[in-house]
Amino acid sequence: MKIAIVFGAKSFEHEISIVSAIAMKEVLKNTQLVYIFIDKNREFYLIPTNTITSKVFSSGEYKQYPKLDIKQNGFYQKGLFGDKKIDFDVVLNLTHGGDGEDGVLASLFTFFHIPFIGPRNIASVVSVDKFITKQYASNMGVKTLSCQYYHKTNDIKIENFPVIIKPCKLGSSIGVSIVKNKDEVEYALDVAFEFDDDIIVEEFIDNVKEYNLAGAKIDGEIVFSIVEEPQKEEFLDFDKKYLDFNRTKRVNEANISEDLVAKLKDNFTKIYNTTFEGSLIRCDFFVIDDEVYLNEINPIPGSMANYLFDDFENTLLSLAKNLPQQKHIPITYDYVNKIQSAKGK
Amino acid sequence: MKIAIVFGAKSFEHEISIVSAIAMKEVLKNTQLVYIFIDKNREFYLIPTNTITSKVFSSGEYKQYPKLDIKQNGFYQKGLFGDKKIDFDVVLNLTHGGDGEDGVLASLFTFFHIPFIGPRNIASVVSVDKFITKQYASNMGVKTLSCQYYHKTNDIKIENFPVIIKPCKLGSSIGVSIVKNKDEVEYALDVAFEFDDDIIVEEFIDNVKEYNLAGAKIDGEIVFSIVEEPQKEEFLDFDKKYLDFNRTKRVNEANISEDLVAKLKDNFTKIYNTTFEGSLIRCDFFVIDDEVYLNEINPIPGSMANYLFDDFENTLLSLAKNLPQQKHIPITYDYVNKIQSAKGK
Repeated sequence: MKIAIVFGAKSFEHEISIVSAIAMKEVLKNTQLVYIFIDKNREFYLIPTNTITSKVFSSGEYKQYPKLDIKQNGFYQKGLFGDKKIDFDVVLNLTHGGDGEDGVLASLFTFFHIPFIGPRNIASVVSVDKFITKQYASNMGVKTLSCQYYHKTNDIKIENFPVIIKPCKLGSSIGVSIVKNKDEVEYALDVAFEFDDDIIVEEFIDNVKEYNLAGAKIDGEIVFSIVEEPQKEEFLDFDKKYLDFNRTKRVNEANISEDLVAKLKDNFTKIYNTTFEGSLIRCDFFVIDDEVYLNEINPIPGSMANYLFDDFENTLLSLAKNLPQQKHIPITYDYVNKIQSAKGK
Repeated sequence: MKIAIVFGAKSFEHEISIVSAIAMKEVLKNTQLVYIFIDKNREFYLIPTNTITSKVFSSGEYKQYPKLDIKQNGFYQKGLFGDKKIDFDVVLNLTHGGDGEDGVLASLFTFFHIPFIGPRNIASVVSVDKFITKQYASNMGVKTLSCQYYHKTNDIKIENFPVIIKPCKLGSSIGVSIVKNKDEVEYALDVAFEFDDDIIVEEFIDNVKEYNLAGAKIDGEIVFSIVEEPQKEEFLDFDKKYLDFNRTKRVNEANISEDLVAKLKDNFTKIYNTTFEGSLIRCDFFVIDDEVYLNEINPIPGSMANYLFDDFENTLLSLAKNLPQQKHIPITYDYVNKIQSAKGK
């Protein structure tokens, strides 16, 4: 199996996507990898696997490598004797944030009939927008913390503190603030609206128990990771979260009851449903008074949450063989023919 | 202003998209049009505006016209002396159903920085999935009929009749059945699941009052069409609905109170919000006991609902000058540089 890792793109998480992509070299040791970088102008480049480093991108050196076009059934490199198709079996979408997690790349791969590991378009929209996530979870029978939704043009009133203010559509804690009193509101709103036109305001619960669980549906059954209790200071900001994207070593399993593990798995299964088929996702849960609440869905978790799996490489390769197929759509021109004969043309 | 009409694609509504596209020639009389056809294999073709007929597509004749590639900033035709960019100012997305209304083409145009009239990706997902539409409407303070949602793997129990069974993600009444008693359930479910894995079941209300209203946000204000009371037999099936896609003549305004018109406009405005910026949409409403309920959102209505507007051509051209812009995303490599210096590399 040959996997093409697609990463970068026009995203606030462009750089951590690079870090995540490079980490794959260490965890997918027995798999052939092809690296396809999307630069900030959304041009595709083929980066040699053996020489990839973060500096290739920050220095602009990537521009010396072959530029690719996306067309039906794959990526192509221009050559003197016609276009050469880049050889791989499946794409691993490792583009965190914009383009990757908002459905843009999923749509591209769908349109061009390129098999890919990653959330499909609806799954992307469901997870990228924190407000839609809450609606979706509720439909699936999974609890979330209640919130207020605001558009930047709305009149915003926050009366009870502390709260957490989040842009609707960004991951990795970008633009997120904990607000402890009225004086801090304005600045936090400015920060959030810098990244998005829509925000949610949630009650902030200090010392809430947090558990992460990843998994992917393979042969109709979800293969789960271990449950992790993420280490946290009061709040993980972007710098601290960077570690998640670079992590390649197994972490320790959370020390919780079998009963709670079962509850988390049950909630994960409800969220994954059929919507997330084709992807390996990480769900981050809160546990309050023994009740499980979904905090967020990471449909392309940092470094694919490899550090939570017993055998990440095999899980990913099995998933690659279990991708959802596009529905066959017959196009017969029966209607058009009927119109033509009705018109006598 | 030169408009590129993009139509066809891998969709159950491929053929009515062709009909819709051709109708534009008659209503956009003073605008230069370019026709870009997407065939069932999702290849792009440039079709000459002066010779376009439905037969060009049903006969396969379109294949003799130039094939195009989509790349950054536009569509390109291969030539002996390099690629030639197709000249137009803005795309009009006239691809009904799959690819066009599910966000796939919106994502393509976004990715390749091609300005387009049509729903953006989130707006597409919100309107293409009838179950998500109901959640969205409720968040925006707009009523919808309650429904049951089922996946094809669910155990389905329908006790009260009549009901209307709809695939979640198809338009133009495709796969929709009115079910009057238990005997008709199995066949109706078979039909619906042929088109989609998810369905909704709604109470069917006979002789419900139906009103359609279209509009687009221009300079921050919604320009509304007239309100239409669609003529209907018990139920509009695909053949009958075809007329909507071919229609180029003004229809008569519904004979309703100013108060009801104001209510419909208010509900339309709530649905349009900022989510639908860049598109001209038609909302189909039910009115029951003076209460307005959203039935569905058509983010690319048949022949763009031109027949509802006083001056369709100017409305569309003004919309073309009022498209939402993509957010600027700074990519600085600050993080990557920080990591490199931390590692001493």
